[in-house]
Amino acid sequence: MKTIDVCLSPDLMHLYDVQDRTVVVVDILRATSCMVTAFANGVDSITPFSNLEACKSMKTKGYITSGERDGKKVVGFDKGNSPFEYTGEDIRGKKIAFTTTNGTQAIEKATGARKIIIGSFLNLSSVAKYLLFGQNSVLIICAGWKGKVNLEDTLFAGAIMEKLKNHVEADCDAPLAAQHLYNLAKNDMVKFLSNSSHVKRLNRLNIEKDIAYCLTPDKYQIVPTLVQGVLVA
Amino acid sequence: MKTIDVCLSPDLMHLYDVQDRTVVVVDILRATSCMVTAFANGVDSITPFSNLEACKSMKTKGYITSGERDGKKVVGFDKGNSPFEYTGEDIRGKKIAFTTTNGTQAIEKATGARKIIIGSFLNLSSVAKYLLFGQNSVLIICAGWKGKVNLEDTLFAGAIMEKLKNHVEADCDAPLAAQHLYNLAKNDMVKFLSNSSHVKRLNRLNIEKDIAYCLTPDKYQIVPTLVQGVLVA
Repeated sequence: MKTIDVCLSPDLMHLYDVQDRTVVVVDILRATSCMVTAFANGVDSITPFSNLEACKSMKTKGYITSGERDGKKVVGFDKGNSPFEYTGEDIRGKKIAFTTTNGTQAIEKATGARKIIIGSFLNLSSVAKYLLFGQNSVLIICAGWKGKVNLEDTLFAGAIMEKLKNHVEADCDAPLAAQHLYNLAKNDMVKFLSNSSHVKRLNRLNIEKDIAYCLTPDKYQIVPTLVQGVLVA
Repeated sequence: MKTIDVCLSPDLMHLYDVQDRTVVVVDILRATSCMVTAFANGVDSITPFSNLEACKSMKTKGYITSGERDGKKVVGFDKGNSPFEYTGEDIRGKKIAFTTTNGTQAIEKATGARKIIIGSFLNLSSVAKYLLFGQNSVLIICAGWKGKVNLEDTLFAGAIMEKLKNHVEADCDAPLAAQHLYNLAKNDMVKFLSNSSHVKRLNRLNIEKDIAYCLTPDKYQIVPTLVQGVLVA
């Protein structure tokens, strides 16, 4: 039987051997939710950068530059980290260079994995199906917040566990913990997360609408995949 | 208001500033449960060692040597990691040198904290009272399993959160996640943990009795404290 594990923080990635695994990178609020939205709206590719300046320099090569640090758009970048910035015609067919506080760092830490895909609630069932029909064991990397564990990414991991529970075996306790938390939260995730640290942080930025959107399951049927350092649909 | 945070793995300790905090080290199965049991049975002191050979060498200085690696007693040591080895008259007034796979490493990572104390379900309410009446903010370090997050230590963190919830503020999401899991588990922790990775590992060693004992709350009213590298009651 295939196995599944959950890495609750990118700072624990040294504990996991990814070379035979499909790795799902998740940063619900908001990097991977933005990425999935962008592909659903016809973007050609997204190149993730952990380094801010490297990302910025891609503007001269015709890329749309997208970035966030500490939840706020970076000065001089075309777009920030709200999914609603990725729903318009202006991105269709374009290439995006993307950097965020946690999400793009998590993608970098997945280097060496057999496959790397992008997960969010927006494409939850499509990711689950991809994992189910794939041959590889699974590792979900939660982007967290500056290395600390967060609830929203953990809930996504739990949702995947819940969908795959009859087909995969948990490697360790983190998938079980995530699954318990998801089952507690699933009937009203917005309410469940209202006390979470990152939701409080985001509420100060007035983006309740973003949060509700990012917690909406199965809005899109795409699975962005990293191919030679570039995400494609 | 004092704050509380939970470090779910010793490998995340670099994220936490402990100098103004009381740090609670917890390794429910079984290091800190053994330590609390030993003090309740009259041991004079316990010196934790992360290094196996350094621990072993203390035998020549009159110490009882206690140790475990991968859940099994170390050859040549006086005692292993079952709490029932620490209930007899033979340890009264003695000094113990102690090394374990996870617990004693977690103590070492807490170096620099304002105070370091030892927590287990066996002394749960005493630890909660100690934290409540102390001035410092709190960090609970879960020993985990070789860096990975485990359920039993997380449940202890959640039990402390539940007891202190009206008096402390969570710094981040980990205390909230732990509290949710504890509230799910509290009516039958043995059953809740029956699928956990470490309980499965220990069941292969035939120590169901140890597990039930280690999950018993409030058997003792002591709070072992680290003073200059040595634990005293």
